[in-house]
Amino acid sequence: MEFKFAKRVENAALSAIRVIGEYAVGKPDFVLLSIGNPAYESFPIERIKEMNMKIFESPESCRAALQYGSTTGTDALRDHLKARLAKYKGIDFEKNDVFITSGSGPALDLMPQTFCEEEDCAFVEEFTYTGELLALSTARVKPIGIKLDSDGMNLEDLEAKIKANPKGKYLYIVPTFSNPTGITYPLEKRKAIYEICQKYDLLIYEDDPYGELRFQGKDVPCMKSFDTDGRVIYAGSFSKVMAAGLRVGFICCDKGCFGKMNYCQGNRAPATVTSQMIISNYMDTYDWEAHLDAIRAIYGKKAAFMKECIDKYVHPACTRTDPDGGMFIWVTLPEGVDGKEVFEACLKNNVGVVPSFGFAADPVNNPGRSFRLNYSAPTMEDIEKGCKRFGEVTHKFCK
Amino acid sequence: MEFKFAKRVENAALSAIRVIGEYAVGKPDFVLLSIGNPAYESFPIERIKEMNMKIFESPESCRAALQYGSTTGTDALRDHLKARLAKYKGIDFEKNDVFITSGSGPALDLMPQTFCEEEDCAFVEEFTYTGELLALSTARVKPIGIKLDSDGMNLEDLEAKIKANPKGKYLYIVPTFSNPTGITYPLEKRKAIYEICQKYDLLIYEDDPYGELRFQGKDVPCMKSFDTDGRVIYAGSFSKVMAAGLRVGFICCDKGCFGKMNYCQGNRAPATVTSQMIISNYMDTYDWEAHLDAIRAIYGKKAAFMKECIDKYVHPACTRTDPDGGMFIWVTLPEGVDGKEVFEACLKNNVGVVPSFGFAADPVNNPGRSFRLNYSAPTMEDIEKGCKRFGEVTHKFCK
Repeated sequence: MEFKFAKRVENAALSAIRVIGEYAVGKPDFVLLSIGNPAYESFPIERIKEMNMKIFESPESCRAALQYGSTTGTDALRDHLKARLAKYKGIDFEKNDVFITSGSGPALDLMPQTFCEEEDCAFVEEFTYTGELLALSTARVKPIGIKLDSDGMNLEDLEAKIKANPKGKYLYIVPTFSNPTGITYPLEKRKAIYEICQKYDLLIYEDDPYGELRFQGKDVPCMKSFDTDGRVIYAGSFSKVMAAGLRVGFICCDKGCFGKMNYCQGNRAPATVTSQMIISNYMDTYDWEAHLDAIRAIYGKKAAFMKECIDKYVHPACTRTDPDGGMFIWVTLPEGVDGKEVFEACLKNNVGVVPSFGFAADPVNNPGRSFRLNYSAPTMEDIEKGCKRFGEVTHKFCK
Repeated sequence: MEFKFAKRVENAALSAIRVIGEYAVGKPDFVLLSIGNPAYESFPIERIKEMNMKIFESPESCRAALQYGSTTGTDALRDHLKARLAKYKGIDFEKNDVFITSGSGPALDLMPQTFCEEEDCAFVEEFTYTGELLALSTARVKPIGIKLDSDGMNLEDLEAKIKANPKGKYLYIVPTFSNPTGITYPLEKRKAIYEICQKYDLLIYEDDPYGELRFQGKDVPCMKSFDTDGRVIYAGSFSKVMAAGLRVGFICCDKGCFGKMNYCQGNRAPATVTSQMIISNYMDTYDWEAHLDAIRAIYGKKAAFMKECIDKYVHPACTRTDPDGGMFIWVTLPEGVDGKEVFEACLKNNVGVVPSFGFAADPVNNPGRSFRLNYSAPTMEDIEKGCKRFGEVTHKFCK
């Protein structure tokens, strides 16, 4: 039969990241700087094994782990989260509550489902996380891209676009070690954005999967910490600080929208109870802050080395960000260079870097000429090899 | 702030099953015959532990288990599934393919997302699985209930409703040990339904989470086995035959819609790789058919005992189904009895049974006067106690 698909998926296509992945198949020498995976060496494998085994020590915990779980998550993990988020992030749990999701990816669907009708809009950075673009496109909510300055969204452009798009329902923002740019918003800018959203009664989805990965500079308070209205929905994840494969994330939001947001998880169960128990057992048993420090050290070392390699191999007319944490460096080519041509030349030179048009809210009119380079997943050897190959291409295209 | 919710969640309310669950809190003598959980004693705990540990034996499998996985699932589990589905269900894998989902619940969202616009319709049994109703309501797709005969949907009503609802996009059906009724459709009826769908070019979502739980009678071929057009999307789950907490389900569909359906999983990752590896390791190591036989024996014993208890305690004016497998018996009260009153009297008599209005496509105009009794989750003692209490209520309301 001829399948008639819904409009929302008619134009569904492979993302740039998957295009690179498929191109690389069967090419053993190809270097992927394109995947946003956490570093293997950051997974505490032996301890995860131990915490996993602990589940099987009592019939009660076996039963809990192997049966359907609560739609809000286990109390043990939620309690750990509330304690940490209150202590380290300054979030008020009189007004707010937390529920577990199966990673921070699936949580992205909850905003369109809870607050948007089809044809509504959401405001995003002009180059933003592909998962948010996917969540918006499957919900048929339109992304409106806001110009980026070196310290985050341009405030004038944000206010102008909000005025021009009255069907805008929320702002999606990754204010700490953003994906793809690595940018961290200073406190004043976070507050100014909050005030603009207050003025136009807009919700804010503060996505913070990388927030614990700071390896230099000083912590900046999350937007949720100064949220007096309940307009900030804060999302986090254990994928980058424990193991991505556990698929555990969480949403922290005002009690006034908690029930509806959690309802919108619907049949999508939260994370498996086993994964939740592994993490809460870990927090019971080991020093979580020391664990985070160990991961930060790994990422700091890799980021420093990638910066060195970029500065050594990439054409000096290119600029790059200097992230204080997270997983990505954003390299921008000089004006006049065609990002698509550079992207294709990179593939031919056996290196995968993700072009800005893969992250663009408006890839047709604003494709950009930047590239996201990931330093968390590759080995040190591959970081150097990949930067060298990317550098060779930039020298071909830059004058 | 005052939250403005999307229309689709404005009227979101607790399901009857959760109403019962909340009513039971703090009442230790309350008997739940309302939960659709698999039997604890059916989980092969020691072997799951062993297969889980096996993952940690090699660095390669650790890495795979703890990293993000493929959006289609692991090749090992997909290969096992293809071999089994071809051998035992007669599904053709030249035309079809299979991808993994995080349980069969989240898979329900894929039909509305892939094939429906808002305000479209889907055809369902007049009393159907609550998860499907939830998936439809969050997608704002309207359920159209088809009258049930003792062997499944009434064919005349099905054809009349299809004609009357041109925006109908698919038929949702649980033809084997249906939830909530326990009905199994005979082969001729399955074929007649397929022909009607063919005539009106309608897709069929064949949900089969209970299909492996036959404890009496003979297997009936699944609808997918005689699907020549690719119009049947077949969904299955390991929740009832391994452990619900693993959250592993799958979709088997024509290659022509495979990509779009899998795309609609979007950020919702499939099941954790760990869960997938536990199951495929199990299938590598142990005799899967013997494992299924052991579960079937447990369910057969419990079902037989519940039937005995119903026949002993429930008023003889009530009728019940005689399921050949699955988890549920459907008890229907005589005409003139008010299901809501009986439901409330049951709560007061310390027994939770789910009223038909909780499963109704149209709860206002067609609430029914039946109850779903679950025998998989409760102990034998609770089965008897619960049926006795439910029976007492029926004697109060039936003449």
